[in-house]
Amino acid sequence: MPNISKRSLGTYESPIRKLAASANQAEAEGKKVYYLNIGQPDILTPPSALQKVKEKDLPIIKYAPSKGISTYVEKLTQQYQSKGFDIQNEHIYITNGASEAIQLLLMACVDADENIIIPEPLYANYVGFSEYASVQIKPITSQIEDGFALPNIEKFEAAIDSKTRAILICNPNNPTGAVYSKEAIIELGELCKKHDIFLFVDEVYSAFCYDEFEFYSALHLNDLAQNVAIVDSVSKRYSACGARVGRIVCRNAKVLEAINKFAQYRLSAPTLGQVLSEALLEVDASYLEEVNLEYTERRNVLFERLSQMDGVKCYKPGGAFYVFAELPIDDADYFCKWLLESFEHEGQTLMLSPGSGFYASPELGKNQIRIAYVLNSTDLNKAMDCLEKAIEIYPNKVALDAKMMEKI
Amino acid sequence: MPNISKRSLGTYESPIRKLAASANQAEAEGKKVYYLNIGQPDILTPPSALQKVKEKDLPIIKYAPSKGISTYVEKLTQQYQSKGFDIQNEHIYITNGASEAIQLLLMACVDADENIIIPEPLYANYVGFSEYASVQIKPITSQIEDGFALPNIEKFEAAIDSKTRAILICNPNNPTGAVYSKEAIIELGELCKKHDIFLFVDEVYSAFCYDEFEFYSALHLNDLAQNVAIVDSVSKRYSACGARVGRIVCRNAKVLEAINKFAQYRLSAPTLGQVLSEALLEVDASYLEEVNLEYTERRNVLFERLSQMDGVKCYKPGGAFYVFAELPIDDADYFCKWLLESFEHEGQTLMLSPGSGFYASPELGKNQIRIAYVLNSTDLNKAMDCLEKAIEIYPNKVALDAKMMEKI
Repeated sequence: MPNISKRSLGTYESPIRKLAASANQAEAEGKKVYYLNIGQPDILTPPSALQKVKEKDLPIIKYAPSKGISTYVEKLTQQYQSKGFDIQNEHIYITNGASEAIQLLLMACVDADENIIIPEPLYANYVGFSEYASVQIKPITSQIEDGFALPNIEKFEAAIDSKTRAILICNPNNPTGAVYSKEAIIELGELCKKHDIFLFVDEVYSAFCYDEFEFYSALHLNDLAQNVAIVDSVSKRYSACGARVGRIVCRNAKVLEAINKFAQYRLSAPTLGQVLSEALLEVDASYLEEVNLEYTERRNVLFERLSQMDGVKCYKPGGAFYVFAELPIDDADYFCKWLLESFEHEGQTLMLSPGSGFYASPELGKNQIRIAYVLNSTDLNKAMDCLEKAIEIYPNKVALDAKMMEKI
Repeated sequence: MPNISKRSLGTYESPIRKLAASANQAEAEGKKVYYLNIGQPDILTPPSALQKVKEKDLPIIKYAPSKGISTYVEKLTQQYQSKGFDIQNEHIYITNGASEAIQLLLMACVDADENIIIPEPLYANYVGFSEYASVQIKPITSQIEDGFALPNIEKFEAAIDSKTRAILICNPNNPTGAVYSKEAIIELGELCKKHDIFLFVDEVYSAFCYDEFEFYSALHLNDLAQNVAIVDSVSKRYSACGARVGRIVCRNAKVLEAINKFAQYRLSAPTLGQVLSEALLEVDASYLEEVNLEYTERRNVLFERLSQMDGVKCYKPGGAFYVFAELPIDDADYFCKWLLESFEHEGQTLMLSPGSGFYASPELGKNQIRIAYVLNSTDLNKAMDCLEKAIEIYPNKVALDAKMMEKI
């Protein structure tokens, strides 16, 4: 029997999906599982857009152009322009979700064994994309104590070496929910310009900012047009993750040309998803307003419940729909598996993503977990009942740290 | 301005799509362009399946599981089993088209700087996928004189070295239309077993075999279950290229596990495309029978027209919907560009794929082109009128070779 590749052996496993088998098993045993592991919202995809897809006359489901269906790209351009961005059709490249967008940027801009700087905790699949492209990650650790704010600019600058090609951030952040300020983005841009490296910003959660938080796109950095590429998608904004339609927006013609070379191999992003995405651009603004109110409420519920649990450390995230909390446990990988395999509370349990997979640094995040608040408040409360009970009876609980002891 | 990656500079450009700008320009100038460059059929996607997608109640377009929507996978399994194949659900992995399937197989089974053997002319994007995965291609050249039949097994064996991990073939073949015999597949399988390497077979054209030609799937090779992976897709069979739904079928659990690790990063193949693909499994057999009759007629038209053109070398392909012909020209890259930019016949021209891009060996295929017979016979005839005229007046025509002179 021939061996698989060595690179498969070393390959990082997604913390978001790796417990899927345990969850299936829990369901097979009759447990109700609350899925808070994956950013798959329960919000309806806008019905008006789904209706438009049904009404569209498409007798042949043809390949799309490699760079995207032109009418969709044109409408996106108009939307950017109407918001004051200096974006033309040729600056937009449609991808198989934001996932492929990041992969293409790495292939186009970074060579094997060069590196990119990413604040951690980071979106776990960035590690996978980097492995796929043989690119090294230099992580800069952000801290739960300040709600995982963007680390100081000095830390970024200190990490830049001769092999650094880009800084990659996710704003609003997955997995922490942190929203980075306009000042922080401008400062990071200036650093990238100074060192002549790329700034990649994953902006897929840009529609989700709560309270006083305001999103500031890196596309505002006109002085940095040759260095900046942003990634976006319809997945989260319109609860259409399965459409698999994302995009790169970039004003550097050479980067776009390089992306096109790699993207031509896979022919095109899905046609039906792009037809849906085009229809989504016509959705009334009230849809997102209502969705934002809903997420704000969920976040409040989650923050309140977590704050009341003994030994749990958390903060109030300003955006996206995640919170990255610290639990009084030994090992979140084991705990999350235990939740599915050995625990139940009134026939129910929950699925979380263990924290270590969201760090590129080894040994970090072992007592942390990511919670996606993608369920309604009633279900979230039930899931939190389970979590509270679970922490109470978990056999490998660790002593609360000094700070927590004071609180008690 | 930061530089793009060195790997982008070296990157091969798809011969199928690289002349897209010239074609757009030709259309902008008012020319009618016959697109014979790309395997995008004009055949209708089965209307009954499209109707089922419209009727499907999908209020949220959710992520699919990374390995595919389970009901779709189960129906595929049933179909394989009904044809006598020993295939279970866990042997099937749904991908973003056959393109991603090949990429995943390379990542899972072959390390950087190892090699795979492919008969050429080859599907051009195999070169791109191999570059993406840093895998070397060892080509074995097949010949137009015998209709691009699979080269002798001795040639394959001679090419195997200590870094060879797999043989990859496409059957029926893109770009040649050759259909490989049962005996040739069995012999190739035995060779792979002897040297303990993988056999990857791209079977996306399996539904398209004409005259006396019969398709023989590598999944029949039960003795070789640990070595074989086949790739398939709904794109060609059901004229649904834009669905972007392909699959890997493989009975090697370790390979599937490695594929899953890499595939989890991109989350999932498109949901709407998979819903369509599931509906396509219910399409009446008469659909494919009619489609086959249609392609047989087109192939006949094309073969007849090409055979009548002075200095054109061709053969009668047994499957798929391509013919790979040799023209009395100096340089097909230049010729194909010239067709779009400097030629017209009664306001019309045609787009072809230049041959050199279908060879991994340098310097081969320079006077060859791939024609996809994806248009109806009337349009094909008009396109051949253009080609005949073009060859007649092309300024850089080369002297016909000795054999052709004899014929005249």
